[in-house]
Amino acid sequence: MKVLVAPNAFKGSLDASTVAAAISAGFRRSSSHIYSCEQLPIADGGDGSLPIIMDYLGAQTLESHVHGPMGWQVKAKYGWIADKQIGIVEMAEASGIRYLHKDQLDPWNASSYGTGELIRILVEKGAREIFLTVGGSASVDGALGILLALGAKFKHSKGAISQPLTSDMHRIQDVDLTEVSALLANTSITVLCDVTNPLLGPNGAAAVFAPQKGASPADVQQLEASLKHWSEVIAQKTNVSIGDMKHAGAAGGVPGVLHALLGAKVVSGGDQILLWAGFDEALEQADIVVTAEGKIDAQTAFGKGPGIIAKRAKTAGKYVIGLCGMVDPEPQTFENFDLVLPVSHGAVTINEAYAYTAANLERTAMMVGNLLPGIR
Amino acid sequence: MKVLVAPNAFKGSLDASTVAAAISAGFRRSSSHIYSCEQLPIADGGDGSLPIIMDYLGAQTLESHVHGPMGWQVKAKYGWIADKQIGIVEMAEASGIRYLHKDQLDPWNASSYGTGELIRILVEKGAREIFLTVGGSASVDGALGILLALGAKFKHSKGAISQPLTSDMHRIQDVDLTEVSALLANTSITVLCDVTNPLLGPNGAAAVFAPQKGASPADVQQLEASLKHWSEVIAQKTNVSIGDMKHAGAAGGVPGVLHALLGAKVVSGGDQILLWAGFDEALEQADIVVTAEGKIDAQTAFGKGPGIIAKRAKTAGKYVIGLCGMVDPEPQTFENFDLVLPVSHGAVTINEAYAYTAANLERTAMMVGNLLPGIR
Repeated sequence: MKVLVAPNAFKGSLDASTVAAAISAGFRRSSSHIYSCEQLPIADGGDGSLPIIMDYLGAQTLESHVHGPMGWQVKAKYGWIADKQIGIVEMAEASGIRYLHKDQLDPWNASSYGTGELIRILVEKGAREIFLTVGGSASVDGALGILLALGAKFKHSKGAISQPLTSDMHRIQDVDLTEVSALLANTSITVLCDVTNPLLGPNGAAAVFAPQKGASPADVQQLEASLKHWSEVIAQKTNVSIGDMKHAGAAGGVPGVLHALLGAKVVSGGDQILLWAGFDEALEQADIVVTAEGKIDAQTAFGKGPGIIAKRAKTAGKYVIGLCGMVDPEPQTFENFDLVLPVSHGAVTINEAYAYTAANLERTAMMVGNLLPGIR
Repeated sequence: MKVLVAPNAFKGSLDASTVAAAISAGFRRSSSHIYSCEQLPIADGGDGSLPIIMDYLGAQTLESHVHGPMGWQVKAKYGWIADKQIGIVEMAEASGIRYLHKDQLDPWNASSYGTGELIRILVEKGAREIFLTVGGSASVDGALGILLALGAKFKHSKGAISQPLTSDMHRIQDVDLTEVSALLANTSITVLCDVTNPLLGPNGAAAVFAPQKGASPADVQQLEASLKHWSEVIAQKTNVSIGDMKHAGAAGGVPGVLHALLGAKVVSGGDQILLWAGFDEALEQADIVVTAEGKIDAQTAFGKGPGIIAKRAKTAGKYVIGLCGMVDPEPQTFENFDLVLPVSHGAVTINEAYAYTAANLERTAMMVGNLLPGIR
């Protein structure tokens, strides 16, 4: 029986490759002895996608010092495929919320500038194509920082704003992209998004994601107004309206703004990474599909990696299993999943759960492996 | 498909009947819609067995004030079947560790006296037979308290000891049972044990159970010596050697001592309760057997309720499932179980786990119910 093991990372605990290895080990240890497992660790454009993408694309890891989300220097990894002149940037490596303690979060001053620096480095290296994952960012800056790092000049009614932050967004009246366009003349950008949220409104960048980036309810309202203003400036300039655009609200508006101003392609990170991983070919060969993530819930069905996998697998008539660290306790059905099991060995601290995640995944997979043979 | 649901209580969280109801609800909610569940909540003679036994035997609940483990009064429930003149005593109701905070534990002074008082009350009521469960006791007193309450007189070289505690055990040289024998002339006692440990040695009452009753390593050594001395006094008097006797070491030696001195029968609580519950008849009708307990581990195979159930069910060729609050995380096989799953919904505090035990049992049973149909 062929098992396709295609998990996400367990954030804070295990990377996706280790998760895949633990689940596969469990199936192999099951009493049935009938499983062959293909391991296909995946990601969806969220924080931590970079190593997965690099693996599938055979990219080389480079590292540079750039400005972090609050301006101080960070060391950011990025990918480079020399023969194809393709660069890979993970926004969280430069502008990630991972660099900030809870009390350092500041949605008015956090910037995507370092991400722009990484793009510039790759362009100057000769990149013809850049893939940018945007999950895990600290900023709600509508890509102001990225644009600035690429040479954009911002103007408001009384003249130029040399270094606009999110707190200046409402004053911007125009942006001069002459230098940016020249820089990117031979480079196309594709943004890989881990969420489908639009830029504005109740499901938008401010309302949904700004609170976890440090915004108070009052901040959320003002951020929404600022992003709305900025999107209107962009619409006036480009005739492209990004307020309702799918994916536009990821990373404080980065996909939408780069699409409108720089012609960036915007895609689902999950779909793109599954394509690179050869998921559909592997799916054809499989009898059972196991995916996994730290938490599986109602949101999982909406664009998250395991949700995409479950949908494709169920559509292809496969038996679909989700393993996770956490579920909501109430009995429930999970769209496209035949079985969802949390793997925790009991009521334990989060640190103990982290320490035992691999063992718990292996044990649970072994138990499921003992059970499954009769099913198909 | 017929499911026999025969769980223990989840200590500190849910009684066995509630556990059985939650598991049954989960199977009924599974997508398969093919399950009929028989609920057979069980116990093994451990703390909390009383209501289960009373249910199966149709006993009436009585209550009396007796001396608790440290001498102060407690209100203890016990059972009475008037037409059959059968009494049921749970030692933990009178002499339970449940009455003591951690810093009140005192293995040298905790006594089984209140348990003896309950036995006396039932005898004076006309009991022809008394069933005594001994799990969850606070004492390591070799039944001194029980004997005292029933009228025994203790002697040492310099005369009588009026109220011997465990701290006096090493000085006892003889016991006069004239009054006890008269009292029990028409009453037989059966002790229901939840463990199989002998009285003495590395698996004995002192070594294994005294530490959780407050004994330091030095205490354990002295308690072992005292129990050894007491068993020698008993052997001299009765020619019965209880040091290695199976079950003799439960409850600080109560089963062994009552057997030797009073002719009490000593049985496995699990076996006895399954007999009363009609387990074997129910097992014949079942396709799948689900048992459950707070923790399932290697010890479960040794005399604990779910271990006994799993063994009988597996011997009868049934599919055997164990649900629990906690397992050891490492992948492992569980003797006689086809599937063991912890039900926790994630890494949560013990209080949250307790609050959600019923939901977690129901959800997990539902998931297993979704999976099982193909198995048999």
